[in-house]
Amino acid sequence: MRNVTKDNITQTFLEYCGPETPPRLRELLTSLASHAHSFIRETGLTHAEWQYAIEFLTRAGEITDPERNEFVLISDVLGLSSLVDMVGTVPGATSSSVLGPFHILGAPPLDYGGDLKQDNDGATVVVKGRVRNMEGNPVPEAEIEIWQTADNGLYSNQDVTQPEYNLRARLKVDHDGNYGFTTIRPAPYTVPDDGPVGDLLRATGRRPWRPSHLHFIVMAPGYRDLVTEVFPSDDPYLDEDPVFGVREDLIMQYVQEDNPDTIEDDFRAKERLTSPFFTVDFDFVLARE
Amino acid sequence: MRNVTKDNITQTFLEYCGPETPPRLRELLTSLASHAHSFIRETGLTHAEWQYAIEFLTRAGEITDPERNEFVLISDVLGLSSLVDMVGTVPGATSSSVLGPFHILGAPPLDYGGDLKQDNDGATVVVKGRVRNMEGNPVPEAEIEIWQTADNGLYSNQDVTQPEYNLRARLKVDHDGNYGFTTIRPAPYTVPDDGPVGDLLRATGRRPWRPSHLHFIVMAPGYRDLVTEVFPSDDPYLDEDPVFGVREDLIMQYVQEDNPDTIEDDFRAKERLTSPFFTVDFDFVLARE
Repeated sequence: MRNVTKDNITQTFLEYCGPETPPRLRELLTSLASHAHSFIRETGLTHAEWQYAIEFLTRAGEITDPERNEFVLISDVLGLSSLVDMVGTVPGATSSSVLGPFHILGAPPLDYGGDLKQDNDGATVVVKGRVRNMEGNPVPEAEIEIWQTADNGLYSNQDVTQPEYNLRARLKVDHDGNYGFTTIRPAPYTVPDDGPVGDLLRATGRRPWRPSHLHFIVMAPGYRDLVTEVFPSDDPYLDEDPVFGVREDLIMQYVQEDNPDTIEDDFRAKERLTSPFFTVDFDFVLARE
Repeated sequence: MRNVTKDNITQTFLEYCGPETPPRLRELLTSLASHAHSFIRETGLTHAEWQYAIEFLTRAGEITDPERNEFVLISDVLGLSSLVDMVGTVPGATSSSVLGPFHILGAPPLDYGGDLKQDNDGATVVVKGRVRNMEGNPVPEAEIEIWQTADNGLYSNQDVTQPEYNLRARLKVDHDGNYGFTTIRPAPYTVPDDGPVGDLLRATGRRPWRPSHLHFIVMAPGYRDLVTEVFPSDDPYLDEDPVFGVREDLIMQYVQEDNPDTIEDDFRAKERLTSPFFTVDFDFVLARE
């Protein structure tokens, strides 16, 4: 096209995509180009602003390494990651929420009633619940990955003082789809704010603090994987999560308990429970594939 | 906001931007978030597609270095760079077109009638024209930067066999706003296609060849800088420029000449002109600041 104009550039872009373009790729590129072009036309984006955007992405590339991906963080703080979670959530199933960058493979198995707290400082929490499907039936073949921060707000792969798989496990559920374990209250923490995303947060007066949460991946044959996070109802950052992870159905209650005798004998840390401690009851609802 | 949904996430994003957010930044982020969210909702973007996009950007970061910026190339092949050029063009002025990554500072001055060809292989071209304003008056205070490929399709900063400032100059115009110099026909070349953008071009059946062109920046006090490219009318890639740089008013005619006597004596290469050679006549129209 030798006469590209601001009004025909989207059409020109689409005409450049040949007949061998996979249909889904064509659909994605059509929507992406159309929206990106509208963004530039509507804002009258200047060369200086375009240059700033290029430098922003270039800096994101420079600060990205295997341990820290600034492009994921850009997606997170613009709400893109969470929106992908939301459009993929089946109504009636538990909402999905951001995977985040701290999941690692290889966490050890933990049976029902097992103890994740071990020698970690922090308030003890007894977490239990059930995995069920949308018909209300238990899913006893489910497996649950859990990972969380230590009391200092760091994950084990951010903190050389923690054992490699500290506060990480693959939980087995019992024949009724029940899971249960003891752990500590995770701590709020900040998203990395020493890169270009930090500049953006500061320029817009946003704080980098995420509300504390437990990360879960719930998997069962025949069901969609559920990647989610569960947040305590009393967290001070619940209404300003910079990555938009909080959903109404992902809020849990910490219930303070004083009497360890109320806890089932299956919980192996029961004898070490000291008052007060907390309990959490949270069910996961899986959607079929 | 503890109950973000796919329908309120754009509004939530905007509410997160504090009152100290600069108004233009707020405007840009409002439009950007709104379009990015619509893109995800309209396409039902999946986690796997999102992951592919993150990996695409991560690879772009890895292949980017001071000599080659893949983020500029992403912007180029999606038509974003050209659209920024177009929305910044004042109707009646010469269209702007992509700066590209090969401009360097410090090119030597060249007087009216000077020779840029020197020892370069390639067909000789006598390029001349006038810099004028939108009222049709000459702009004698203008200065013009020119850069182009050698006969092998490479710019001097891509090719160690070329002198540092080969085929680059800052042209002076005369008291009537005229410029003129001798050079060679530039060659078509490909955009870098060994990175993620190359994968995208191949997946969509697009070729990486750009039509040959002369790059210009025209500057004069009181006028907007004009960053542009000029393309020959007979180039085979004119209708499929992967970076959307071609505009009707940026097409020049190579006119074949056989008689060096038709060229003004001011052209210092006149005595070395051998038949046939080409002439190009191209005027630049500047918009006031």
